[in-house]
Amino acid sequence: MAEETEGLPSRTDFSAWYNEVIRRADIIDVRYPVKGLNVWYPFGFALRQHTYNLLRSLLNRDHEEALFPLLIPENEFMKEAEHIKGFEDEVYWVTHGGLTPLDVKLALRPTSETAIYPMYSLWVRSHADLPLKLYQIVNTFRYETKHTRPLIRVREITSFMESHTVHTDWEDANNQVEYEIELAKEFYRELGVPIIISKRPDWDKFPGADFTIAVDAVFPDGRTLQIGTVHHLGDHFAKTFDITYEDVNGEQKLASQTCFGISERSLAAIIAVHGDDKGLVLPATVAPTQVVIIPIIVGKRGDEILAAAAELEAELKAAGLRVKTDKRDMRPGAKYYHWELNGVPLRVEIGPRDLDNKQLVCVNRLGVKTQIPREGAVESVNRLLNEAHDQILEKAENHLEAHLKHAETVEEANEVLEGNVVAVHWCGDRECADKLEELTNSALLGTEIRSKYVADDEGRCIICGKPAKPALIGRSY
Amino acid sequence: MAEETEGLPSRTDFSAWYNEVIRRADIIDVRYPVKGLNVWYPFGFALRQHTYNLLRSLLNRDHEEALFPLLIPENEFMKEAEHIKGFEDEVYWVTHGGLTPLDVKLALRPTSETAIYPMYSLWVRSHADLPLKLYQIVNTFRYETKHTRPLIRVREITSFMESHTVHTDWEDANNQVEYEIELAKEFYRELGVPIIISKRPDWDKFPGADFTIAVDAVFPDGRTLQIGTVHHLGDHFAKTFDITYEDVNGEQKLASQTCFGISERSLAAIIAVHGDDKGLVLPATVAPTQVVIIPIIVGKRGDEILAAAAELEAELKAAGLRVKTDKRDMRPGAKYYHWELNGVPLRVEIGPRDLDNKQLVCVNRLGVKTQIPREGAVESVNRLLNEAHDQILEKAENHLEAHLKHAETVEEANEVLEGNVVAVHWCGDRECADKLEELTNSALLGTEIRSKYVADDEGRCIICGKPAKPALIGRSY
Repeated sequence: MAEETEGLPSRTDFSAWYNEVIRRADIIDVRYPVKGLNVWYPFGFALRQHTYNLLRSLLNRDHEEALFPLLIPENEFMKEAEHIKGFEDEVYWVTHGGLTPLDVKLALRPTSETAIYPMYSLWVRSHADLPLKLYQIVNTFRYETKHTRPLIRVREITSFMESHTVHTDWEDANNQVEYEIELAKEFYRELGVPIIISKRPDWDKFPGADFTIAVDAVFPDGRTLQIGTVHHLGDHFAKTFDITYEDVNGEQKLASQTCFGISERSLAAIIAVHGDDKGLVLPATVAPTQVVIIPIIVGKRGDEILAAAAELEAELKAAGLRVKTDKRDMRPGAKYYHWELNGVPLRVEIGPRDLDNKQLVCVNRLGVKTQIPREGAVESVNRLLNEAHDQILEKAENHLEAHLKHAETVEEANEVLEGNVVAVHWCGDRECADKLEELTNSALLGTEIRSKYVADDEGRCIICGKPAKPALIGRSY
Repeated sequence: MAEETEGLPSRTDFSAWYNEVIRRADIIDVRYPVKGLNVWYPFGFALRQHTYNLLRSLLNRDHEEALFPLLIPENEFMKEAEHIKGFEDEVYWVTHGGLTPLDVKLALRPTSETAIYPMYSLWVRSHADLPLKLYQIVNTFRYETKHTRPLIRVREITSFMESHTVHTDWEDANNQVEYEIELAKEFYRELGVPIIISKRPDWDKFPGADFTIAVDAVFPDGRTLQIGTVHHLGDHFAKTFDITYEDVNGEQKLASQTCFGISERSLAAIIAVHGDDKGLVLPATVAPTQVVIIPIIVGKRGDEILAAAAELEAELKAAGLRVKTDKRDMRPGAKYYHWELNGVPLRVEIGPRDLDNKQLVCVNRLGVKTQIPREGAVESVNRLLNEAHDQILEKAENHLEAHLKHAETVEEANEVLEGNVVAVHWCGDRECADKLEELTNSALLGTEIRSKYVADDEGRCIICGKPAKPALIGRSY
């Protein structure tokens, strides 16, 4: 937890910048003795806590939080054939209790369908029990053999939000899918992170789902990161786990289900999308410290200035803001450096001149400077925080727009793919997709794209020339 | 999550009552397909959340929350000899990732010393880094072979709060031990749960500790449940994990450490200590619903009464209270039954007469009825909630006092041990303790007892007659 004074790597070298900023800003320590298992520093933990509390507040409007066990017995885990295939290479298995081999092996949940649905089978009896909408926020595990990277590809996802809903029929479940998409949109808007929503191709959907809607962010290097998914499960799992209900006419019916997940990749997106060469840039909605007050002590008025800072801190805190005053005995410049690295949205300076003029000097994390009158500071600070949020969202939107290219031919696509995602037209045939992926060394991310930068127009397939709809290709984490 | 209408078993049959109330009040479902791994219903989860948020608010005064991995590599886990011995029979081992055997087996943490201290070894460099006071709230695992029981003896402890502090010397760590004891006292006072604090005998201390201070509750059947522990670790782990610092004189010194744990047994104590034949009795500090409003609809004034209930709900909520209005179309008596089962501290009834008289009828969970004026309801309700808290604490204190007996001889002890804990005198010799435990079929719980019901006096050892100090014996969960 020691801060260094040399500069960060430039964000143009994104990978180096990301690893350094996560370490120096006290988010995560990767030196734990097992690769891919990381330690949250208190500052990182606080950021995580605020982010998940925001997510909880949105979910609690129409879901309830519950909690299911980590360990899934092999027989339950193995029940749904497609689902197992999707996970068999990456599940951690507990085989021993003490020195005794277990009768039934236990999987560490990679996701909790097979832990939750045996209970849903007990709980759902009648149409009156539906819809059932629960979520949990839990640690989940993947035995990653690829290169791990904090928050992006890890072996213990320490905070996976997974919502699991049950409905009377496919249509009602589909309405829930749309509801969860809107919820994900609202969540990321609160974080200032622009997203692209699309339907994953069939071969890339969640194992056992009817279809998967994915939420992607575009990183500074133009690669995408999947930061949320909503799955329509149809009645696949309901069949396997016997989730049935008695309808209004007394008939037994199969239920229809959805699940929806957001992981700590949401924090990776906050860090990667907003950060700059000085360090983190945090949205005020989740910043552990929203406002830092820096007393500028020059001349003999130190006590007076500290008293004014304390009074301001109390006033802002009483209004519900998360505020710190940096009273350390060091140059203001070194303090600015520290709080910029930590991404604090607004810095408020109080010096002798500000006292005399009954004013405050505010500088937001993007460097925008504003003088405000001391009177009514709460209102002004809240306004500046809102403006700062708009500014980081706009900056991020501009980045997304600049990195979303269009191409009509493979040659055009190859010209712009480096550092960008590219909208093309694709006929829907798997063969054309395989060829496209091979020729462009990219992945087909999705169709039915929901983004203001991609029109829902008809075109010609970039491979076969047949009538086609928009599809997105790119390189992903 | 279906409610039944037959009565609960009487609380005098504690074991049957406990299992039933946990199920019917929607705390926990034990029907998960692996014994000892349980599911939290939304209501139970909310109670857990409020309880842990209370604990967090106390800890955050001088600790910070962090998060360390679940999986501990075998080589780290095996470093501290005493510690391993204490856990080797009850650790779950992960041996495979997918179909591949792991190079190094991974333990599911039973507790996190061996996960955290390798990091502390990296983080602690200088006396300026000390004291270091972190905690985490995590799932931990024990391969229990004994009979499991929800919240009391389980295989996944879903929320174990473990605080780990590092200090310059033994004395400073000892001050922290005292600080944590006071914190545990405050926590349980807020829950209305009376406790007995004592020093565990040496053979029952935490594996690797200098000594262990335990917090016990006395259950309705007179058995004790350990609901908190504070351990002085001395420098045992610091030696093993190389946690050293440079002191003010530039010398390298070994650090001294403490740890402190509270698990979801705290919820078992809330349920067991306060509950009655009608169900849960929850302290308002953590009750998911603190106040339930019951509109009494008789005659033609239904709309008027519902409007008054809505207005009251809004007023109480604006004051920060957790309130529900039960508008279901059913008899008030059935509603009372439901909310009593769920332990809601205060019920507020509004009927036509109350409207006319500008009053409210309040009944707390112990059955104490009070009429309050409608005007100033927030203040009155808060007063009634405080009084209700005092009443449940007093009731619990009376129970504890009645079940704490004294004995000077083995015969006397045997006469009163059934359903009670018993204070005796013991010389401190292991042999006498073994004999005492054998002759009374009980366990020596602790010495240096901190309880107003046990005087710190000199006496004669109940076995050998030599000079002796007070010790507590009893039967435990």
